[in-house]
Amino acid sequence: MTVLGQNQYGKSEVRVLKVTRDGATHHVKDLNVSVALSGDMDEVHLSGSNAHVLPTDTTKNTVFAFAKEHGIASAESFGILLARHFVTGQEAVTSARIRIEEYAWQRIDTPGEDRHSFARENQETRTAQVTFDGSGWSVLSGLKDLVLMNTTDSEFHGYVKDRYTTLPETRDRILATEVNARWRHAWCDEAEPAPDWDDSYRRTRAHLLAAFAGTYSFSLQQTLYAMGAAVIDSGPGIDEIRLSLPNKHHFLVDLDPFGLKNDTPDGAVYFAADRPYGLIEATVLRDGAEPAIPVDLTNLP
Amino acid sequence: MTVLGQNQYGKSEVRVLKVTRDGATHHVKDLNVSVALSGDMDEVHLSGSNAHVLPTDTTKNTVFAFAKEHGIASAESFGILLARHFVTGQEAVTSARIRIEEYAWQRIDTPGEDRHSFARENQETRTAQVTFDGSGWSVLSGLKDLVLMNTTDSEFHGYVKDRYTTLPETRDRILATEVNARWRHAWCDEAEPAPDWDDSYRRTRAHLLAAFAGTYSFSLQQTLYAMGAAVIDSGPGIDEIRLSLPNKHHFLVDLDPFGLKNDTPDGAVYFAADRPYGLIEATVLRDGAEPAIPVDLTNLP
Amino acid sequence: MTVLGQNQYGKSEVRVLKVTRDGATHHVKDLNVSVALSGDMDEVHLSGSNAHVLPTDTTKNTVFAFAKEHGIASAESFGILLARHFVTGQEAVTSARIRIEEYAWQRIDTPGEDRHSFARENQETRTAQVTFDGSGWSVLSGLKDLVLMNTTDSEFHGYVKDRYTTLPETRDRILATEVNARWRHAWCDEAEPAPDWDDSYRRTRAHLLAAFAGTYSFSLQQTLYAMGAAVIDSGPGIDEIRLSLPNKHHFLVDLDPFGLKNDTPDGAVYFAADRPYGLIEATVLRDGAEPAIPVDLTNLP
Amino acid sequence: MTVLGQNQYGKSEVRVLKVTRDGATHHVKDLNVSVALSGDMDEVHLSGSNAHVLPTDTTKNTVFAFAKEHGIASAESFGILLARHFVTGQEAVTSARIRIEEYAWQRIDTPGEDRHSFARENQETRTAQVTFDGSGWSVLSGLKDLVLMNTTDSEFHGYVKDRYTTLPETRDRILATEVNARWRHAWCDEAEPAPDWDDSYRRTRAHLLAAFAGTYSFSLQQTLYAMGAAVIDSGPGIDEIRLSLPNKHHFLVDLDPFGLKNDTPDGAVYFAADRPYGLIEATVLRDGAEPAIPVDLTNLP
Repeated sequence: MTVLGQNQYGKSEVRVLKVTRDGATHHVKDLNVSVALSGDMDEVHLSGSNAHVLPTDTTKNTVFAFAKEHGIASAESFGILLARHFVTGQEAVTSARIRIEEYAWQRIDTPGEDRHSFARENQETRTAQVTFDGSGWSVLSGLKDLVLMNTTDSEFHGYVKDRYTTLPETRDRILATEVNARWRHAWCDEAEPAPDWDDSYRRTRAHLLAAFAGTYSFSLQQTLYAMGAAVIDSGPGIDEIRLSLPNKHHFLVDLDPFGLKNDTPDGAVYFAADRPYGLIEATVLRDGAEPAIPVDLTNLP
Repeated sequence: MTVLGQNQYGKSEVRVLKVTRDGATHHVKDLNVSVALSGDMDEVHLSGSNAHVLPTDTTKNTVFAFAKEHGIASAESFGILLARHFVTGQEAVTSARIRIEEYAWQRIDTPGEDRHSFARENQETRTAQVTFDGSGWSVLSGLKDLVLMNTTDSEFHGYVKDRYTTLPETRDRILATEVNARWRHAWCDEAEPAPDWDDSYRRTRAHLLAAFAGTYSFSLQQTLYAMGAAVIDSGPGIDEIRLSLPNKHHFLVDLDPFGLKNDTPDGAVYFAADRPYGLIEATVLRDGAEPAIPVDLTNLP
Repeated sequence: MTVLGQNQYGKSEVRVLKVTRDGATHHVKDLNVSVALSGDMDEVHLSGSNAHVLPTDTTKNTVFAFAKEHGIASAESFGILLARHFVTGQEAVTSARIRIEEYAWQRIDTPGEDRHSFARENQETRTAQVTFDGSGWSVLSGLKDLVLMNTTDSEFHGYVKDRYTTLPETRDRILATEVNARWRHAWCDEAEPAPDWDDSYRRTRAHLLAAFAGTYSFSLQQTLYAMGAAVIDSGPGIDEIRLSLPNKHHFLVDLDPFGLKNDTPDGAVYFAADRPYGLIEATVLRDGAEPAIPVDLTNLP
Repeated sequence: MTVLGQNQYGKSEVRVLKVTRDGATHHVKDLNVSVALSGDMDEVHLSGSNAHVLPTDTTKNTVFAFAKEHGIASAESFGILLARHFVTGQEAVTSARIRIEEYAWQRIDTPGEDRHSFARENQETRTAQVTFDGSGWSVLSGLKDLVLMNTTDSEFHGYVKDRYTTLPETRDRILATEVNARWRHAWCDEAEPAPDWDDSYRRTRAHLLAAFAGTYSFSLQQTLYAMGAAVIDSGPGIDEIRLSLPNKHHFLVDLDPFGLKNDTPDGAVYFAADRPYGLIEATVLRDGAEPAIPVDLTNLP
C-alpha cells in the first residue's frame, strides 16, 4: 500500500522581460520565474483526474499577464503578488512557492537623450523565493554565481591530522569562493509594511562583500560566519542566512624543478583548480530565531 | 547577537576511477564522491580555530585510499565505509553524509581475450547518498538525466480554467520527461544484512521504466505516482521515493499556413521546447512510513 | 574604407521531432537543425535593406514543413533536401549549409504490441553537415561526446625533454578520450547514387571503436591516426576524416604516504582530471584527396 | 592508402593566476591558456615514436614558468612569448598557436590601505590568439559572452516572403545579442613596435558598444556591419573583424486573451526565447586586406 507525500507542481523558468518607457528613458526588469503549487491534489496523482489542476500553462500565462497588469517593482514583490493570486484564487491550492532569478542590466553610455541600450552585468544572479500558505509569508532573498577572492590575509593550520593527512600548513594562501547565499526576511505578516526589497538587497550584498574582504581568515568557516553575522547584525530585517561557499582552490605551482622560486614579492603563480573543491556550508541565525531555510542550496553532489 | 545553525563541510566531487584486473579482463568503477561532515564545529566558525577540523584535503585522500584498501563493491557500500570512518574516527564529527554519482561504462567488443576497452554509457547518472549519525543509517539511491518519452497514450483535459487559461485540451499528446529520482531503503541498522545494492538499483530502474511506459496517462502526476508506487509495491526494501519530473514539452507544429495537415497517420511534427517547462514533483511512501527525503532534489529555479 | 567579407545567416538549433506510426509501432527522429545561407547579401549589411533576405523565421518554418512533407530518412538526406531548397528557391542565395545534430532513442521493452515508449541513449551525438553551392555537394558526417577508455596497452616515453619537462615516462597508463570526429563523404554529385547514410554511420562508428580498442598505443597521436586510417581504408566512400581527441587524463594517485602500494594486480586507483588536458587533433586523408574539413572542430580554447 | 593532413597538439585550458604585490596593493592576471603545436610530427602518428614530441605536460609547465619568469603584461604579449619559445626552442615545431581567455576582476572597496580583495566581473570573456610560424605573426584579439540589448530603434520588414513565411513585419522590436567577436591586428612583424594590447582592447570594446547602441537598425546584419566598420574605421591597427551575433529573440507576449493590451507606453512584456535563434555572422575588412580569420568562431550547430 502506498500513499502520496509532499507534492508540488507548476511552470518553471518562465523568462519574462518587462520594458517600461519614461519618455526616451527605458527601464528593464529581466526575470526567470518558477511557480510551484501545492494543495488538495490527491486525485490527479491517484486517478489522473485534473479537476483540481490549474494547468502549468496557465501559471505561465499568469506570470506574463501580471507583469503587465501589476508591473515588477522587485522580484520579491512580484513573487508576493503571484503567490497570493494562486492561493486565494484556487480553492484546491493551499500553498504556493514562487522562485525568481533576476538578471541585472547596466546602461550603455550613449550621446543624445535616448536611454534604451543595455549590457547584461552577469556578475551575480539575484534570487528570491516567496512562500505563502494562506496566512503566513516567508520571503528568502539571495544571490549566486558571485566569485570573490582575497590574495592574502588567509592562513590554514592547526587542524586535525590523521593517517590520511598530507596537506602542509600555510600562513599565506589565496582564499576564493563563489557565493551562494539565501537570507530570510523577518517580514511574514501582510499587516506589517514590507521592506524595500531592492534596498535590502543592495545593503546585504555590500555587507557580504565587506565581511569577506575585511576578515583576516584562519578558515573559510570563519569567513563564512563573519559574512553571515555581518548581515544579521546590520539591522532587524533579516533573521537567518544560509551560505554555501565552495573553496575555489588556487594552488601555488612548484617551480623548483625549473630553478625558479615561486611566491616572491615580485609575483606568485597559482594553478586555479576545478575539482575537487572544499564545500563549506552553514546557517547563521539571529539569537532566538528558528531555522527555516533548507540546508542544501545547491544540488552539487 | 548571532548563533550558528546547521553546518557541514568536506571535499566535493572527488573523481575516482578504480580498475581491477582479473587476468586479461578489467573491471572499472567510476565515481564522483562528495563528503560532508558535521559535529562540534562551533569554534572554527567563531574564532577560526581548526582544532576540530579534519581538512577537506584529508577527506579527499581518504576517498582514494579507501578505494584501494577496501575496493568499491557498490556506490552505496563505499559510502557506508566512508561515513562510518569519519564518524567513528573523529571525535568532533558526529554525522557524515556521503554523496556519490556513478558513471556506467560498457565494454567494447574486441577480438581476442583482452577485455580492457570501454565506452561510457551516459544514459543516466546513478546516485547514492549515505548518512550516518553514529547510530542510524539512511541510504538513498537514485538516478538522474534519464530522458523518457511516450509518443502516445497521453491525454490532458478536464482541468481547471481561470481567466488566464488558454491551453486547449488534448486527447493525444507526447509525454516526455527527464527522470530525477531518489529512493530511501528500509535498511538502517547495521545488525541487519544490507541489500544487494546493485541488484536493487537494476530492479528499481526497471520498475520506473515499465511504469512510465505502461501507464495510460491523463496527467504527468498520475504517471509519476504510478512510477513511485511500482517501486514501493515491488517489495519491502524501499519505503519512500521522491520523483522530480520536468514535463519536456513537445508542441505539435501548426502547419496549416503551409497547406499541410499535421498529426496524420503518416507522421506528426513536433517542436521540442526548452523553457519554460512544467515541473511535477512528489513523494510516494509506503503506508505508515515517515517521509525523510528532502523535497527539492534539484536546484532548478 | 571597409568591405564586407564572408557572411552567412539563418536559424540555428531548430529542435524538431518527427513521429511516424506503423500501426502500434512508432518510429522517431529527433534532430537539432541549423541553417546558414550565403549569397548576394551586401545590401542588408550596408543599408539594412531586407529585399534579398529570407527571414530566419522562414528557414525555421521550412525545417518543420519539410519534416512533414518529405519525412526524415536520415540527417544527411534531410540536410540535402533543405540545402537544395534554399539555393534553388532563392535567387539571392548561392550557398547553403545545413548542420544537424541527431539524438538516438532506444525502445523500452514493453509487454503487448504497442511500441511507442523510448529512452534517450545519450552515448554520443551524431552530426551531419551538408553544403551546397548550386553545383557541388559536400557532406560531412560525424559524432561527438563519445567517451572511450583503454585501461591498459598504452605507453608514453621516448619524448623530447627540455628545461621544463618533469613528466615521468610510463609503460602502462590509462588512455581515455572524448571522440569528436567529422568525416567527408566522396559523394558530391547528385548524378551519382547517394550512400546509405545510416549504414555508413554505423560502419564508421564501428571502425573508430575497433581501432581505438585494438591499437596498442605509444601516443594518442598514433591511436588517432589508426582510427582515421581504419575509416578511410574501410572502403571508397569516405575520403577525409578530422579527429579532435582530448586526452582525458587519469593520474595514478600517490598512496605511498598512507603505506599503500597503488597499481598492484588487485586494483589501481586513479584521479580523473578535468583541466588542463592534452588536445590532439589531426586530419587523415585518402592519398590524393584534397583536405576540405575545417581544422577546428570545437571552440575549446 | 592514407596520408596525414593538418595536425596540432598541446595542452588546453591551463588555468593560471598571477598575483603581483606592489606593497599592500595586489594586482592579478587570470588566464586560461591553450597551446597547439605543429611541425614535423609524421612519425608519432604513423609509428608512435615520440622523438619529436615535447609532452603536453611540458607545455603546461612552460605556461606556469613563463608567468613567473616573464610576467603577464597582457594576454597577447604573453601569447607571443610562448609561441616564440616553442617555435624557436624545438626544431620539430614549426608553428605554434596560443589561445587565451582572460577573466577580469574588479577591486572590492575596502577601508584601510590594503588592496587585495576582488570580485570577478563576468560580463564578458576577453580572448587572444597568437600564431607564429617562425617568420610572421598573427594576433587575433576578441571577446565573447557579452550580452547587449536595445529596447527600441529596431525594425524588421521588407524581407522576402515565400510559401513558408509567416513572420509579421515589425516597426519596433527588441534587438538583443550575445557578442562573439575576433579582430585581427595589422601588426605581424616583430621589427615593428607592438600595439598597446590592453588599450587596443578597451577602445575596440567601446567602439563595438557604441555602434550597437547608436545604430538605428533595420536588420541585425546592418548592426553587425556597423559594429565591425566602427572598429576598422577607428584607426589603422585592426584590419579585419569577424562577428558572430545570435539574435536573442524577445517575443511580445499575446495578452489579448486576458483583455490586456501589450506594448503600451506604460510597459511591454516579452518572452525571452532560448532556441531556435537567428545567427548572423560576417567579416568586415579594411579595403584591400586579405581575410584570415576563420569563418566559424563558435561550434554552435
